[in-house]
Amino acid sequence: SELLMFFAARSLHTERVIKPALEEGKIVICDRFTDTTRAYQGYGHGFDLSKIEALNDIVLEGFEPDLTFILDIAPKTGLARSERRLAAEVLNIKQKEDRFENLDISFHEKLRQGFLEIAKNNPARCKVIDADQSIDDLVKEILESALERLA
Amino acid sequence: SELLMFFAARSLHTERVIKPALEEGKIVICDRFTDTTRAYQGYGHGFDLSKIEALNDIVLEGFEPDLTFILDIAPKTGLARSERRLAAEVLNIKQKEDRFENLDISFHEKLRQGFLEIAKNNPARCKVIDADQSIDDLVKEILESALERLA
Repeated sequence: SELLMFFAARSLHTERVIKPALEEGKIVICDRFTDTTRAYQGYGHGFDLSKIEALNDIVLEGFEPDLTFILDIAPKTGLARSERRLAAEVLNIKQKEDRFENLDISFHEKLRQGFLEIAKNNPARCKVIDADQSIDDLVKEILESALERLA
Repeated sequence: SELLMFFAARSLHTERVIKPALEEGKIVICDRFTDTTRAYQGYGHGFDLSKIEALNDIVLEGFEPDLTFILDIAPKTGLARSERRLAAEVLNIKQKEDRFENLDISFHEKLRQGFLEIAKNNPARCKVIDADQSIDDLVKEILESALERLA
């Protein structure tokens, strides 16, 4: 059911927002699309990947991004970053850290492997970007790739 | 999107309510299931029937009712019945009647043909019941069919 709801939202978003913008000649930048569902529900939660593909075929009829950036980082580093953000808001984060982190690390490791697998299966569309670099370098790398594709 | 939402609800309903009840040995009576989606979204609104079947296969994996009763009535008679019910509640029904009825008749005619087509394609599962008879006779006919199937 959850998967169907995600696809219902994605279908609406695609038909109402993305496609009309593309028809106006705009460049659409979208944070998360079907790859995220593949990674989270498929690789992460173990939902049958072939069912996800079948649903995607029915709902999106082959519509997909021209270019997908996968920002890759070791889960430990990525989680530490979000915890630094959280720590500013939540005072008792320290005592929760271990349980949280242990749960998250293995799940995020599965997600990471999923995203890398997706990138390997779609080499023309997906570009893996090392996210463990400075924001400036990361932005530069993404911009160069995007401009190259648009040229 | 709407279709995906219907299937999300049907999936949840099937997994949480219908299947557990069947496992307890209960007889489950359900008012509307996939046939209604086939009739309304497919035959009525013209949505691609093969997509509905593909979605149904993914979501319900062949799960379907053992026996389906289709209560058949001429749209004019059926609508007159619901208008009689409505009339008790809504005082200004008379002035709306024509516009309403004209719109409804052709749509309900498509629905009816859809349901009859579904019955023709699934003769072992579907039983068409003439709904233009007394409630007592109708109940008797349904009960006899159901008991025969359970015997």
